[in-house]
Formats: sequence, structure tokens, C-alpha cells
Amino acid sequence: MTGREIHLVARPAGAPQPGDFALVETDVPEPGDGQLLVRNTWMSLDPAQRVRMHAGSSGYLPAFELDRPLDGWAVGTVLTSRAEGFSEGDTVLHNLGWRDYAVVDPASERPPQLLHVDADTPDRAYLGPLGWSALTSYVGLFDVAELRTGDIVFVSGAAGAVGSLVVQIAKVSGHIVIGSAGSAEKVAYVRDTLGADAAFCYRDGDVGELLRAAAPDGIDVYFDNVGGDHLQAALDVLRVKGRIALCGAISSYNASEPVPGPSNLFNAVAKGLTLRGFLARMYVHRMDDFRRDMQRWLADGSVVYAETVIEGLDQAPAGFVDMLAGGNVGKSIVRI
Amino acid sequence: MTGREIHLVARPAGAPQPGDFALVETDVPEPGDGQLLVRNTWMSLDPAQRVRMHAGSSGYLPAFELDRPLDGWAVGTVLTSRAEGFSEGDTVLHNLGWRDYAVVDPASERPPQLLHVDADTPDRAYLGPLGWSALTSYVGLFDVAELRTGDIVFVSGAAGAVGSLVVQIAKVSGHIVIGSAGSAEKVAYVRDTLGADAAFCYRDGDVGELLRAAAPDGIDVYFDNVGGDHLQAALDVLRVKGRIALCGAISSYNASEPVPGPSNLFNAVAKGLTLRGFLARMYVHRMDDFRRDMQRWLADGSVVYAETVIEGLDQAPAGFVDMLAGGNVGKSIVRI
Repeated sequence: MTGREIHLVARPAGAPQPGDFALVETDVPEPGDGQLLVRNTWMSLDPAQRVRMHAGSSGYLPAFELDRPLDGWAVGTVLTSRAEGFSEGDTVLHNLGWRDYAVVDPASERPPQLLHVDADTPDRAYLGPLGWSALTSYVGLFDVAELRTGDIVFVSGAAGAVGSLVVQIAKVSGHIVIGSAGSAEKVAYVRDTLGADAAFCYRDGDVGELLRAAAPDGIDVYFDNVGGDHLQAALDVLRVKGRIALCGAISSYNASEPVPGPSNLFNAVAKGLTLRGFLARMYVHRMDDFRRDMQRWLADGSVVYAETVIEGLDQAPAGFVDMLAGGNVGKSIVRI
Repeated sequence: MTGREIHLVARPAGAPQPGDFALVETDVPEPGDGQLLVRNTWMSLDPAQRVRMHAGSSGYLPAFELDRPLDGWAVGTVLTSRAEGFSEGDTVLHNLGWRDYAVVDPASERPPQLLHVDADTPDRAYLGPLGWSALTSYVGLFDVAELRTGDIVFVSGAAGAVGSLVVQIAKVSGHIVIGSAGSAEKVAYVRDTLGADAAFCYRDGDVGELLRAAAPDGIDVYFDNVGGDHLQAALDVLRVKGRIALCGAISSYNASEPVPGPSNLFNAVAKGLTLRGFLARMYVHRMDDFRRDMQRWLADGSVVYAETVIEGLDQAPAGFVDMLAGGNVGKSIVRI
């Protein structure tokens, strides 16, 4: 059987280009003893995958190898099971995306997860509102930033997969929320559809001034998806004992040289601020709490979920390039 | 009665110079109703006072005014009391240092504290091992960095007032401790007298390489008195779930332009690190715990305390200049 997979063929210099990727035909191996053959149906595009396209380790997941398939979250249907606990026709979540067929090993370090799928919960929901990027929003607010009553919340990348849920989870929890995004359309979406109390387009001027105008009373929590100017601005505007959830730094992912950090970090001393970084997988023990709450919010309409759907594995590189350039709203997923 | 006080007469450009200060004679006012007249005996020199010599607010205490006396922690003897609860001859801790006579108001925002003084506990101890900078070491480790069993601790400025106690408190609590300092003599002091397991002189090379060599297994806690290269190095060497207590950033205090922050802050995301800033006064509720523990450690010899004593109020500016240049070991105090 012949499959297709996306390889990284050149390390991007600056913003990735479609030519940095190649669609490669390959023989799909037979699953070995204890393994599954999965036909992938959907895969996730995540900004942090850009970090792994740089050479060497960044203290993050290992760098992608050149001329090898990329990887990332995907859902699919089991075609052949030679592993206990999995049957033909099962739906699974696993981390071998960027290909149409995957041989998945339940005994590996990151085993596949058997999914419950029904009419209200399609397979792709486990890449979306019930997936890892949504868990990121949830634990970033509650566990990492230790959200507490009365906190004013600021989130950057507020129209994105993680940010759009941060806005809504904070709103449903009773907070004042300010969001930033990269276009007037996104700002309108963040305010009108997601329900943020204030929102601004970071391209409209100095981020510090824009944030001060949007948050005249200051902020207590900053959920950082962006880094750079946004982090600098938040450090100035945060109130005493404020907290920053360091989730991502998309503003620097394309940089080939180290990008200086905020020059006003002394604010953390003067105001007793906490900056805490995290990856969702450090909070996997919160998955059940998260899914229970999220399913309730989705059912009662307090959380809505937007997707940017890319059609076809061959379009995944273009979708990835577009997402990093800010072309998406909500979660970017690829129908394979 | 004529008193003397030290004024800031010019905002230092770079490292402070003695000419930025002036000794000024002044008439000592009579204490008003509810006030005390205090003869200061000792005052504290603190690196963070340099921050207040810049114009404008840094989110810290207000900037010092030109041609006005500086202020800071001092102890002294009550000469005249017109306030309830204070008597002639009492010893008090207050924040009107940099002068020989002070009119102190118990109804002010930062009221004086009545001190218990005996043969084992001279007045100056309340600027030293029982004072605010020592509280800083204590809460920075236990409350801010949330020191836990098995943590490997790195502290910069390890021969200074705060750092020298951090080394010893961490050692008496059973931890492996690495310290950095600015001369071979200080490094020997940190290792041989304070008991650090390893120490290095940060002038000997790349701080990141020096730290890796001194801490081959990595570190879990970084107590940051320095910022700059030290903070950058610690972010690289910290292990998963590591913590940084952001106490000070002496490497940037003399800068007249903003100094870029660490370019490797993404380590905080990838390794789930926590950076928390603090001022000792945010932890005043821990003062009793701290003094009880510290008095026990001093009594049983598990903590030793070094002072750099400057003789005379007129020498305070030179002492301050020297301290910022790294000329001190332990706590710098001025005998008035």
C-alpha cells in the first residue's frame, strides 16, 4: 500500500515557505506485533511546531529531522490492530500526523488514546475543543496563572486556537477580559463573538499604549501566546502580585538569531510578579476536569469554537505557512 | 541643634561617583506631637537604592529627589518621644537613614519598629542578620522559590548581604549549593567560609559555561541578585519545573538605557519554569518565623554573618560607590 507524508526538506530561514516542505510517496509498512495501522482523518497545525524546524534543541521537543516526515497530533481510524485493547474501526488520537497512514505503537513513550466518538463529538473535536490546545487554554488560566476572583485578564493571539478559548473560559468564569489580535476582523470577532470586554489590533500602534488604553485599571493575569512587545507591555501594565502564563512566543518563532527578552523584567521584582511557563502535557492530570467543564460549556453555548479547515494533506504546508502569518481564526486543522 | 544629612545632588550617569552626593548641615527640627527625635547609630547600604537614583518611577519605590536627603533603613536611639509607646532611650528601626538625626512619625505609612536589644543582639543586628536583607534571603528561598527536598540551588552575588545568607540557609536546609561572586577572594569565602559545594568567579569566562561546569547535574532553584548573563545562564541550566527567585538585577542598575532581557526565556515554556519577583516587604508576615530560625542558626553556628563597616556618615557615599563596584563582603553598614 502506498501512503503519502510531508517531509521537511529545508530549515526555514524566517517565515516558512511551501518549498521548505515536500509531499513524499512511501510504502506503508505492515504493523508489527503490538502495533496499529491507522488511517489518519484529521491532523492539527500548531505554531510551536515552528520551533522544532530550527536545528538543534531549544529545550523543547527534539528538532524535526530533514527529509523525514514531520509529526504532530492527529486522529484516525484503526485499519488493522495487532495490539490488545484496540480493534479495527476504533478512533484514536496519536502524534503521528503529517501522513495519511501511520503505524502507531501503544507501547511507545506517547501512546495512542482510544476516543469516544458520537454524534455530538466527532473525531476532530479531539484536536479542537477537547484537544491539547484547548487543555492548554484551561490549565494556563486555572493552574499556571492561578486565576482568582476579580482578576482582569489579558490574552494575546486572542483569535487563535488557544487564545479564543482563553477569552471565553475567562468570561464564563466571571472575569474582565482584554484580547489582542492581528487584524480589525479578528478584533471584531474577539469582542463580538467571543465576548471580550475590550480588544485591540496590535498593528495599530505601540502595544504598551494600546494595552493601557484597553485596560485603564491594569491587568492581573497575562496569558502570553506571543512574547516580544506584548510581554514587555504586559510587564508594565500588570498590577502588584500579577501573573503571566508563558504559553508561547510566536513573535520570535521565525527568528534565526536569538531575540532579546523584555528590558523591563525588573517590574517582576518591584511588583512581585510571577511568570510561569508550561506545556499542556505537564498538566495531563487535568484532562478529565477540563473535558467535563468544556463539554458543559459547549453544550450550554457559553463557549463557541472556530476552526480553519485546510482540505487535504497536500495543502498542510500552505496551511501551516498561512497560520504562522496570522491567516487563521481559531484552530487550524487539516482534513486528510 | 545642627544635624548632617547626605543629599543626592546629581543623578549618576553609570556608576555613582562621590560627587553625586553632598554632606549638608541642617537644623534639626523639634519633633511634633506624636513624633520622635532619633539619633541614628547605624544605617544600611542597599544596592537597590541605586534604582531610586534614576529619574522617574521604575515601578519600585519612588525616585530620590535631587537636593534632598536620601532615605533607607537605619537604627537609632530615641532622644525625645512625643509619641505613645516610645520612650527616651528606646532603640528603633526606621527608614530615615542617610542622616544623623531623624524626626520619625509612628503614624506614617512606614512606622518605626521598637527593637529588643541585649548583649547578644546589638542594635545593628537589625540591619544585618535580623534585618530586611536577611529576611529577603529567607523568604526568597522558602516562599518565593518554594525550596523543596533535593533541590540544587544556585545563587549569584553569593558573597553579598543577601547571597551569603542564601548560601548558608540552603546549606543548613540540606541542599547542594553553587555560588557565583566577582573575585577569587570572594569565591574562596563562599566555598570555604559559607560552605557552598561549588563556586565560581563570573569574570573568569562565559557565565553559562562556568555554571554548567559547577553544576553538572543542573539546578532547580536560581536566586537571582544580578540579572543579565547570570539569568540567561540559569535559564539554560535549570531543570524541568525549576524556579527563579528574582530578587535584584545589580548588573543593570547603573545602565542609563534599558537593558535587554534574556533571549532564552522560551526555556520557561519548554521546561515549565517559574520566575517570581519579590520585595521583602511583601513577606513581612514571615518576619517572626525568620527571626526565630535565624537566631537559632546564629546561636548554633550554622550561619555566620559578615559585615563591611563604613565609619562615619560622611563616608556613606564612598561606601555606597564601593559596594556597587563589588568592594564589600556581606552586609554594608555605616556607623553614624
